[in-house]
Formats: sequence, C-alpha cells, structure tokens
Amino acid sequence: MSATRYAYLGPEGTFTEVALRTLPEAATRELVPMVSVPAALDAVRSGAAAAALVPIENSVEGGITATLDELTTGEPLMIYREVLLSITFALLVRPGTKLSDIKSVTAHPAAQPQVRNWMAAHLPDAVWESAASNADGARLVQEGRYDAAFAGEFAAATYGLEPLVTEIHDAVNAQTRFVLVGRPARPAAPTGADKTSVVIWLGEDHPGALLELLQEFAVRGVNLMLIQSRPTGAGIGNYCFAVDAEGHIADRRVGEALMGLKRICPKVRFLGSYPRAGVALQDVRPLRAGTSDAEFTEASDWLTRNLDGRG
Amino acid sequence: MSATRYAYLGPEGTFTEVALRTLPEAATRELVPMVSVPAALDAVRSGAAAAALVPIENSVEGGITATLDELTTGEPLMIYREVLLSITFALLVRPGTKLSDIKSVTAHPAAQPQVRNWMAAHLPDAVWESAASNADGARLVQEGRYDAAFAGEFAAATYGLEPLVTEIHDAVNAQTRFVLVGRPARPAAPTGADKTSVVIWLGEDHPGALLELLQEFAVRGVNLMLIQSRPTGAGIGNYCFAVDAEGHIADRRVGEALMGLKRICPKVRFLGSYPRAGVALQDVRPLRAGTSDAEFTEASDWLTRNLDGRG
Amino acid sequence: MSATRYAYLGPEGTFTEVALRTLPEAATRELVPMVSVPAALDAVRSGAAAAALVPIENSVEGGITATLDELTTGEPLMIYREVLLSITFALLVRPGTKLSDIKSVTAHPAAQPQVRNWMAAHLPDAVWESAASNADGARLVQEGRYDAAFAGEFAAATYGLEPLVTEIHDAVNAQTRFVLVGRPARPAAPTGADKTSVVIWLGEDHPGALLELLQEFAVRGVNLMLIQSRPTGAGIGNYCFAVDAEGHIADRRVGEALMGLKRICPKVRFLGSYPRAGVALQDVRPLRAGTSDAEFTEASDWLTRNLDGRG
Amino acid sequence: MSATRYAYLGPEGTFTEVALRTLPEAATRELVPMVSVPAALDAVRSGAAAAALVPIENSVEGGITATLDELTTGEPLMIYREVLLSITFALLVRPGTKLSDIKSVTAHPAAQPQVRNWMAAHLPDAVWESAASNADGARLVQEGRYDAAFAGEFAAATYGLEPLVTEIHDAVNAQTRFVLVGRPARPAAPTGADKTSVVIWLGEDHPGALLELLQEFAVRGVNLMLIQSRPTGAGIGNYCFAVDAEGHIADRRVGEALMGLKRICPKVRFLGSYPRAGVALQDVRPLRAGTSDAEFTEASDWLTRNLDGRG
Repeated sequence: MSATRYAYLGPEGTFTEVALRTLPEAATRELVPMVSVPAALDAVRSGAAAAALVPIENSVEGGITATLDELTTGEPLMIYREVLLSITFALLVRPGTKLSDIKSVTAHPAAQPQVRNWMAAHLPDAVWESAASNADGARLVQEGRYDAAFAGEFAAATYGLEPLVTEIHDAVNAQTRFVLVGRPARPAAPTGADKTSVVIWLGEDHPGALLELLQEFAVRGVNLMLIQSRPTGAGIGNYCFAVDAEGHIADRRVGEALMGLKRICPKVRFLGSYPRAGVALQDVRPLRAGTSDAEFTEASDWLTRNLDGRG
Repeated sequence: MSATRYAYLGPEGTFTEVALRTLPEAATRELVPMVSVPAALDAVRSGAAAAALVPIENSVEGGITATLDELTTGEPLMIYREVLLSITFALLVRPGTKLSDIKSVTAHPAAQPQVRNWMAAHLPDAVWESAASNADGARLVQEGRYDAAFAGEFAAATYGLEPLVTEIHDAVNAQTRFVLVGRPARPAAPTGADKTSVVIWLGEDHPGALLELLQEFAVRGVNLMLIQSRPTGAGIGNYCFAVDAEGHIADRRVGEALMGLKRICPKVRFLGSYPRAGVALQDVRPLRAGTSDAEFTEASDWLTRNLDGRG
Repeated sequence: MSATRYAYLGPEGTFTEVALRTLPEAATRELVPMVSVPAALDAVRSGAAAAALVPIENSVEGGITATLDELTTGEPLMIYREVLLSITFALLVRPGTKLSDIKSVTAHPAAQPQVRNWMAAHLPDAVWESAASNADGARLVQEGRYDAAFAGEFAAATYGLEPLVTEIHDAVNAQTRFVLVGRPARPAAPTGADKTSVVIWLGEDHPGALLELLQEFAVRGVNLMLIQSRPTGAGIGNYCFAVDAEGHIADRRVGEALMGLKRICPKVRFLGSYPRAGVALQDVRPLRAGTSDAEFTEASDWLTRNLDGRG
Repeated sequence: MSATRYAYLGPEGTFTEVALRTLPEAATRELVPMVSVPAALDAVRSGAAAAALVPIENSVEGGITATLDELTTGEPLMIYREVLLSITFALLVRPGTKLSDIKSVTAHPAAQPQVRNWMAAHLPDAVWESAASNADGARLVQEGRYDAAFAGEFAAATYGLEPLVTEIHDAVNAQTRFVLVGRPARPAAPTGADKTSVVIWLGEDHPGALLELLQEFAVRGVNLMLIQSRPTGAGIGNYCFAVDAEGHIADRRVGEALMGLKRICPKVRFLGSYPRAGVALQDVRPLRAGTSDAEFTEASDWLTRNLDGRG
C-alpha cells in the first residue's frame, strides 16, 4: 500500500537515502530507490508512493534542474519537508588497497567538482571514469572494474569496501538540500521558521516584470532566500522563476504577496510551505515592522471600520 | 434642525457659496455662511450643521492650509463630495464709475495673484488694499471706501454694484476645488470615478519613508492625484502627507493599499471616498492589469484553494 | 553700493531681522527691511541688494508659499545659507499695563496658531485683531490702538514697550527656517554637512512620476529632508515639487541624482547647496555603503578600465 | 600561431561547429575541437587559441552551467560575439536501415528532452543509451554499436550515415545560444543593437540585494534580457547572478548602471558588450525617455553649469 512507501533517488547507498533516513517517519516506511528524479516523482503522481525525496539544490552545482523542471511542469506536486545534508566523500577501496595502488577511480559526475582538487594533489595520475551513481561506482570497485570510488562513507559496508580516506570535499561547507514531495494537500501548520516555494511565469516581453515580482514580496516585508530562472520551453529568453521565500502561505504577508503575484503574472504555481531545515526558531530574521499577522489583522479591522463609517 | 443646515466659508456672495449652490441638495438646505474654515468645520463637529463646504485646493495658491490642517487634526471629519469651480473675477464698481476714475481697489489677498497682471496693465496707478473677503471688499466699495473691488460677477447684485470688466484671471484655467465635509459615516457606494483622501504620518527620521508610502500605492496600481506635505507641529522637518488617490476605499486595490499604509505608518487618517468632480466615467484612466476587483477575488480564491490543498 | 546691502523681510524688529543678525557678515552690511518677500527678492534680482534673508519654512505653518513661489518662478536665484530660529513670543504692553487690563491684542496672523492656546487660558475675553507684521502690531500698541501685542521680546525696546509675559509658544519647539538668497554663482565648497535645494516639475498626467523622482535620489543613497508640492499655475492637479536633499551638488551621489532628474523631468531648477544649520558634522547621518565620492571614483575608474579592455 | 586558431566545444560535427561556421572569420581560422567547455576556455586563457565558441544558453535546458561557471571564476575572459542556432535533430542510420529495424538509439543526454516525445510516438520500444556527444553517438552507429543516433543532419556525411528522419524537435523553436570568448580587450564599438553581460555578487545575508541590483538597471532605463543565479561555492543559498542587459557598456545609461552595481555590490565582473544576434536595428526596443546618450550629455552639461554658478 502506497501510504507506507517513500520513493527516493536511488540507488541504495547514495546521499539521498542518507538524507531520507534523517526523517523520523522514514523508520516506518518502505524506502524504494528509483532510477531518476522523474521516476521518483512519477511514482508519487501515480500513487505508487506516498512521497519522494529528491535533491533540489546543491551548494556546488546550484539548482538541480531535473527536480526544478519536474516540479514546474506536469501534474502538480507539493513540497512538505526539506533536508540539508553536508556532503563529504570517502575514497572506497577493496580491503588492502593502498593509495599508491590506485590507477583508476570512479563516481557520479556530480562528485567531480568536489573531489577534483583532492585528486590533483593525491592521485595525480589516476584515471577518472564516470559512474551512473556514487553507489554504482562503489559496486564497480567491488567487481574489480575500478580501483577506487568516491562515495559516502556509509556506502562502504554495502559493497564490502573500506574507506581509505574520509572527509574529502573541495568546497568548504558543501551541502545538498533535498525535498520531500507529495501530492497536493493542506500544508502543515506554520512553525514560525517556514519557507514557501513557488514558481512564477512572467508576462512576455515585459522587461520590468522581474522587478515587479520582487516588489510584490518586498512591499510586504517578505524576504527571498532563492530565485532561480528556468526556461519555459518557449524559446531563448523565456524564463520562469522558482522562488523560495521566508514564511508560510498562512502568514498574512506571504499570502498577500502570493495573491499579488497571482494577479499580475500569467501563471503562478504554489509548491508548498514547510519548516526550514537547519534554522532554529530564535535564529529566524525578525519580521519587518508592520508585517506580523497581528498587524495585518489590525489594519484589516481598521479598514472595515472605515468602510462602515466608524473610522 | 442641523440636518437641514449646510455651513460654508462666508460671507455670502463668495465663490464658496456659488460652489455650494451647484450641489442639487443645496436647494433644500439652509445655507449658513461662517467666518472661517475652522468655524465652518466646528459647526459640523458640534452638530450645528450637517455639512460644510470649504475650499481645499486652488490652482494658483495650492492646498488651502487652513482646511488641510483642520481635517488633519481635531475630531475626525469626512469628505463626501467635491466641487470644482472656475475662478474668474469681475471688477465691481458703483454704477457710473469709469476705469479712469479708479484710484483704489480691494479684494481678499488670495485674489491678488490672479489679478496682478491685469492690474499692472489696466490700473497701473491704483492702490491695492486687502479686504477680509472678496464679498467684504464689494461691501466696502458700496460704502464708498474704495473705488473698485475684484470679486465674483455674481456678487454685484448683492451690493448694488456693476461689473465694469469681467473674466479677469491671470492664470489660465484658474480653478478652486471645494469639499463637502460631514461627520464620519459609511462612504457613498463607488461610482467608478472616485477619489480617496487620506492623511499619512511618516515614522520619525526614516528618510525612505515617503518612498515606501508611494510604493504601497504603486504596487497595487493605485494612482495618486495629489500629495501635499503639512507640518505635524513637532518641529522643522516633521511632516505628514495629505494624499488623494484614484479609486474608492471599497475597491480592493485601494483597500489593500490603505491597509499597507496603516501597517507601516504610525498614523493614517481616512478622509473619505467620494465621486470625482469633472471626470466622466469614460475618461477615467483604465486600471493597470491585475488590479480589478474581479482579479483580486480570483487571487483570493486561488489562495484559499492552496491553503486547503486544492491548488 | 549693493554688495554691502542685505535686504530682509521687514519691518525692523521682526524675527527675520533677528535671524539675519545671527550671520557674522551681517555686522558689516547695511540691513534693509522690505515690505514683502517678493520685494526683498526683487531687490536681489535688480542688484539693489547683494542678498536677502527671507523665511522659507515654519514648524507650525509649513512651507512659506510666497518664498517657495518666488524661488520657483521668475529670474533664477540661489540659496547660500540657512538660519534656524526658535520662535517664542512675548506679550508686549505699554509700561504699567497689567494682564487684567488687556481687552485687545494684535500680531501678524502667522503668530495666532502659536499663541492661541495661551490666549484661551490667560486672556479668554480679549479681542484679537491682525496686524501687518508683529513689529507693526507693537507700533500700534505704542500708539494706543491695542492694549497688547505678541511679538519677539527684542521688539519691546524699539517701541517703548515692556514684555509682560515671555516664552509664549503653543507648539513645542516652534522654529522658523530662513534662507539667505542671492544671484546665481558658484556654490560654496562642501562642508560635509550640506543641503541641496531643487525644484522639480513632473511630466503631465504621469501618475508614477513622483515615485520615479524619489527613486532617482534613493538609488544613489541621497536622503530627502523635505518635499513640498506647489501648484504650477497650469490648473488643479498640476504641481511641481520643492525638495531639500542631504548633501552638496559637488558630492558625486547628489550630482548623479540631479542629472537623473534633469533627464527624466521636463524641468529642474537648482536652488543651491549650502551648509545645514543646526547640525554638527558628527551628527550627519552616515552615508549608505557605496555612495561616497571615493566609491564613485573607484567605480568610474573600473568602468574606464573595462571600456579600455583592462578590466 | 594562436591568432589563427579558434577552439570550440567538440567533437567535430556537433552543433557548436555549425554555429562557429556561421561566423565569417571562421573561414580563415583553424577550428580546433576541444573535449569540454573548460578545455576550450583554457585554450584561450593559455594563448593556445585566440577565441573559443561555447554554448551558453539553451531554450530547453536553460543556462549551460559549465560555461557560466567558467566565465564567472578563474582568469577573466570576455564575450565578443553571440550566435543563435535553431536546433533540430535528424535520426541518422547506416544506409539501408528502416525505422522498423531500430532497436537501440543513442545521443548526448542533452538531446533527450528534445526527442523524447518523438521517440515515444515512433520508436516506443527502442532502447536509449547516452553517448558522450551527438557526434560520438553517430560514430558508434557507424561502428554498429547502435542502430541509430540523434544528431545534426550535417553529421551524417562525416560518419557515412544517412538521415532517415529530419527536423525532429519536441520544443517549438528550440534554440541554442553560443558565445565567442576571448581574452579581455577593448569591446567592439556599439552597433545600436547590443547586449552587455556581467556577473554580479550580492552582499551576504542582505535579502533586498537582488531588488537593489535590478533597480540600478531600472532607474537608468536599462532592460534586462536574462538573469541567472549560480552558486558561489560558499554554501547553500549563496548565489551570484549572471545578467544580460540591453545596450553597450559605452552607452551612458549602461555605464552608469554598471558603476552603480560596482559601488553597491561586493564584486562585479564585466563579461563583454557585443552585437545581439537575431535582432535587426529597427526591432530594438526604443529607449525610455531621458536615457539616450544625448540626454545624458545634456544633463551632464547642466550639472557643470550649476556647479560653476551658470545654471
């Protein structure tokens, strides 16, 4: 039964699985690896899975376009959770292999920018070949096709390998952000440290449209955390924007900003409001004066009184 | 009984009386001249008059500060109507007086900028003295104190004078705008060609506050027709702003803009929504895309659906 | 010879004269009272006076429209200095008069809002009549026409009166700002605590024009201290704006903002850059990051390098 | 000698080569295919090539991150030209192969979104495998490893294949934009239909920074054609923005906007001003009033006159 099944971008032993296992409810779900982001999300759309965990942003590579494009088009889905995972690699080898033995290494191409400097320093002569996933690279080492694989340290056990070197990462603080995606439903209640994701299409050939979009947020004191352009498919220069804003759709300032976008933009797709990962309540930026729910209610009451002649 | 009594800035025979008589209901009201704008408005506040007509803006002199300041402070009042009157002067004389006989002229000081050029050309040697009102100037001519008075042509009959020259006005298209002021009540329904007046206090020592004020209107597509600063009395450099905006408080875009101001400004006073004088419905500027009531309702429905998980 | 002559809004013994005498150079000038602001400024235009001191803003009444309108139209003039003066009134009487003897009081109408409450409390039954100036009111008391006059305490000696009560002022911190106006010339060098005055005409029927005007300043980090609308004379709703901005025309951020206004507005009139009164250098608001002259120069050098291919 | 050598993203027979050959000077250059975008750009940096043509934007996939990241970091390079190429695929087969014979197809993964629908309709049972490039896919068909390859029709001859089907493309109007990149030098003179590319870093944790960035352009009437975020490598949520603006760095409005960015942003990298591809001079959007070079010069002269007291 799908309600107990969570899909994720597989195969087993990747960072996505690790990220998924940080969610408490993962312990009671059947976790199903899928071959691609589209496959994982289609499993949700078809009802084969209750939800899917997929990467959406990477501090080295930027937005994961496959995920952004899947959420932007097709049957609507919604984000319910996000998970932040620090990415460090281990060099996995068959037991007994020494650094000087390594002539060939493999990993998913996304790993390359994060290990390139380390390789240049420590394995200058080794040949790199790409694998379909980091886990798959580990499997190929197990089979003897390569001497070493970059992968998460947690993958060693699965493939009978050992981590020769750990904590390899070129970029300081490399992180990947994952989102748990399900079919549209009522968002969870605001926690006070929330994020709202939305995709916004701009009108054609209106050079000031992006500025107007940002002003709908700014005038209501809603801070943006991320804005990414994605092509609409209608030709060079036609973009929609995936935006992450601070706050919850049930916060009055966010709701009013979204309605403003809905009015002036040809299309807006709400992707969800969900708790922010990695931010304690006390670290949330204070609201700009005049933008709390209480102040919205007070202003609304004032308007009603004036409409009624009781100013 | 006060419901039948309308006060106005007197004395009888001034432009204000003429403006008041353009209102259909004036025919069935007792029209009471008052000695000053504060006196006329206090009559409304005390219940001695149901309403008062007072000048608020003049195309030559600008905002009438006495009226702006009375509406800004003290017990709240509301504007229900506006009247636009073209201002041209007649040179009133005792019957038989010729232009060459005129050695002294009088009128209210506000008339001076509108007749100065004419006087320089036609009465270069005549002496000007100020009168308490144009009507009072006519009375002084009747009494023989001065040879001529600048006043509305309509004042001639009242004082037994004759208009020697008419249609005198220096500024092209000199007009005065008057407002009919009453105690606060429910505004009349929108007509489609409405105006909303409001006074807005800015936070202290916040140099960008005026820009933010304008953006609250701009982001909702509400055009401003007038913005005038008035000192708050709290020292040099402390101003509030009297603003006239296109539209009615019951229009969603105007209501949301006013709520925005209410939230971010220390104080906002609603002065009324009322039909625009001198503008036919077909001449109203078209709404900016996305700002009609229908579009507000649609956006609001869309938000509700998303809050409910039925996006 | 005019270079030694300073005109001011008279008569002698008014606050304007006191303000003028606060300027060090006044000691070596012939100070000539004029009957009106236009007369004082025309004396400068004609060369009869080297400069004129006139009031321009009053913390109770707001902008002095006669001064604003004279600076806005006619042959250009320039502001070289400003003087701030705290306004408190004395009740001047003939020697021996007691408070209970006073049946009639006089003063210039502008004094009324500042003494109204005091009169209501202490002279509830006295009759008020307006005088042409506060000094003139004092003269009329000397002549026995009225029992008392509100005027500056300094006026008592001139007219053989004595101050029965001093420090009368309703508004907390009532101040008047005066400007020293001359014919256009090179502005004095920046002091670091300067103000720039300008009059700006907006394009016709362009509802967003005021917002654009403010953005020209805001985007360069130039704070506004005052913005006042004045009718252009072209009919109701046609306004120009008198603006005081922090900084000096020779400051790069101010110069660029003024050029921006010059480009997008039909007309801009520069009224001068001059030291701010009442603000010590250390109390000037710090510049917004990126708007100092050094940063402008650095950016300009960077642009030149890139234009030359030496980015 | 490198001045005669142009590198491009190889291998031979790809769309990049076709794009490069549309440039007139390509006829007299030695065209050198490189294995990757970094390799092509490093050839320019090292002097091994005078310039390199690389893809930068694709109407289906969006910005080409490898190119954006190479231009954003490392030793500075500059864009001198852009080429727009419509992308349609041909299905290349060994002579004699019929559609019904095809069991396996290959191409570069970037081709997949553009042929997916066509495959589903016409080759529902064929197996897809990825190739290193479209040209490489064609070679593998020649060698008999696959039955068919999606590639540009022009690649058929090189590999002894024939185009079984042509004009295959899912997205309407699929285009790729390529840029010719060289070492920094003086940009070519403005043509009137130019584009300026720049990369802008925002200050840390300043939620309104993107809005301010856009306002620097908007206030000078400079339209943006593209804005793309790229991670800075400093962790999740840290982005810089690659921006394409209408106009040339030598246009005053563009130069002033760039200086504004330079002043308020921690870092700005100028990537070049170059003629826009695919836009005739008469189709360029008209300038906003007040933003022509003539108007900039006029405003600058006006400022100088006022600085000199000759306002």
